[in-house]
Amino acid sequence: MAVYTEVTDEDLDAFIATYDIGHVVSCKGIAEGVENTNYLLQTSEGRFILTLYEKRVSEKDLPFFLGLLDHLATKDFPSPTPIHDKNKDALRKLNQRPAAIVSFLDGISVHRPTPKHCQLLGEMIAQLHLDTVDFPLHRANALNTDGWEKLFGDCRKHADDFQTGLEEEIAADLDDIVSHWPTQLPKGVIHADLFPDNVFFLDNQVSGFIDFYFACDDLLAYDLAICLNAWCFEPDGQFNITKARALTNSYQKRRKLGANEINALPILCRGAAMRFFLTRLADWFSPVDGALVKPKDPNEYLRKLRFHRDLRGPDSYGVD
Amino acid sequence: MAVYTEVTDEDLDAFIATYDIGHVVSCKGIAEGVENTNYLLQTSEGRFILTLYEKRVSEKDLPFFLGLLDHLATKDFPSPTPIHDKNKDALRKLNQRPAAIVSFLDGISVHRPTPKHCQLLGEMIAQLHLDTVDFPLHRANALNTDGWEKLFGDCRKHADDFQTGLEEEIAADLDDIVSHWPTQLPKGVIHADLFPDNVFFLDNQVSGFIDFYFACDDLLAYDLAICLNAWCFEPDGQFNITKARALTNSYQKRRKLGANEINALPILCRGAAMRFFLTRLADWFSPVDGALVKPKDPNEYLRKLRFHRDLRGPDSYGVD
Repeated sequence: MAVYTEVTDEDLDAFIATYDIGHVVSCKGIAEGVENTNYLLQTSEGRFILTLYEKRVSEKDLPFFLGLLDHLATKDFPSPTPIHDKNKDALRKLNQRPAAIVSFLDGISVHRPTPKHCQLLGEMIAQLHLDTVDFPLHRANALNTDGWEKLFGDCRKHADDFQTGLEEEIAADLDDIVSHWPTQLPKGVIHADLFPDNVFFLDNQVSGFIDFYFACDDLLAYDLAICLNAWCFEPDGQFNITKARALTNSYQKRRKLGANEINALPILCRGAAMRFFLTRLADWFSPVDGALVKPKDPNEYLRKLRFHRDLRGPDSYGVD
Repeated sequence: MAVYTEVTDEDLDAFIATYDIGHVVSCKGIAEGVENTNYLLQTSEGRFILTLYEKRVSEKDLPFFLGLLDHLATKDFPSPTPIHDKNKDALRKLNQRPAAIVSFLDGISVHRPTPKHCQLLGEMIAQLHLDTVDFPLHRANALNTDGWEKLFGDCRKHADDFQTGLEEEIAADLDDIVSHWPTQLPKGVIHADLFPDNVFFLDNQVSGFIDFYFACDDLLAYDLAICLNAWCFEPDGQFNITKARALTNSYQKRRKLGANEINALPILCRGAAMRFFLTRLADWFSPVDGALVKPKDPNEYLRKLRFHRDLRGPDSYGVD
């Protein structure tokens, strides 16, 4: 949530002239996406998002991200469509930074998802997994089990400052999760960051998934586990099984989960909680320079981590 | 340039339902205005700016600011038009903060104004001064000569930290400016903060003045002096008399300056430079909490202050 890079009117006009999208009518830096600079661009032809990729996104990954959005556009999946310039390029440079223009998506994100939102979300996650079966590019998940161990290695020195005894607790938990991590489940392209901020709703439908900059190849059910954490807990920390049931069962309407995936949900949810707990712990002690948002409190995900660890089994997620 | 206050989708929907502007289609926090929280709001009826007033804007001044924009709308002056709710109120509350919705203005601000931009600006400043002659509300300039003395009193302890000998230099200069400050010049409503950020251009015309939150009653020619400082210096610090000539003479096409106003330009420009130097010096040593932008370097206005102090007379501004 930040504007990092300012673009002058002259540079913008020259840049837009290399596309077939009319001329600039207005351009506002918007507070969306912690990682990149985003502008809401209005031209004589319509509304677009102009993104300048800042250093947190690796340039070598951009062809995967933009290719994925191009692919999803061919499936009419509600995600931003990359706009190609007159040379047919989607990935460009502006102000010495990689840059791209994508279509603007209407809709607003919800702060307090209802079971209905979870139901709509579940179907759309399954749709994403089905629509990307034939996507030819690949990207490993940088925040997989190896990534978590590396992250914990970097920030474990702060763990006890955050909460006494935490270093030992997380070290043991991480070992346990990594040693039980499933490897034989169905894989494919996952969004990997489907927080409520990244999902737009309009007229009782999902109108868009945005911010695909963590998308990668990984276990499909792990995407669902990330959403069980991000959408199905109440502000007071209580797990809401009605929302979890709506999410998982609407997912299954479009893509049936295997018994092995269902059985793996507790460990996948623990892993997902660990992943976000660790990045928040790391950010807590070294916030992003120039970002407006305060680092998110790691406690939220610490509580979720402990919740899943203490569960009896996959029934707790309301899966039919 | 910051989003300070988050508004949930539920609060937003309920708020918008009290207006006759359709339903919410999208809403993005935008990086415009250091002082307030601004959202670019798209409804089924059009585009608007939703502003939540943060603590830097005094609530008691809001009827003046919104009344001024209402007044300017009746004159077809290109400024944001306040949208009144179903009870005909423009000033509302949202998230415990004063809030208002205004029309969205197309156009983009220029980073490097040309003489043509200065010419277009000059005419529009004069138009603003003419269009507000019959505006009935009043607001004293909080940043008048008394305000500068108070500001300097608060931050003079930092002056020598900024540059050795600066406290003595500014104290003497401020005394000199205040003791020579004109009092008999034509007064009226001035914008008082017409930096390039606050002026939009489109299709070779001024498409909007925005950010009227320093508007007040003061010497009309002081508005021009603020713009001579903000628009007519090059990035290397050189004064560009071609731009100054374009600005002042196009102003005079719509409102002729009196001889007393022309003669006062050097002292008005010194005062304007002092005003922005002092606020920048104060912000340099106590930046706004939560603001994304770095404090602006006071050196720019220190150089302008010295430039005007050393001038021979009003001819240096290219006034015909």
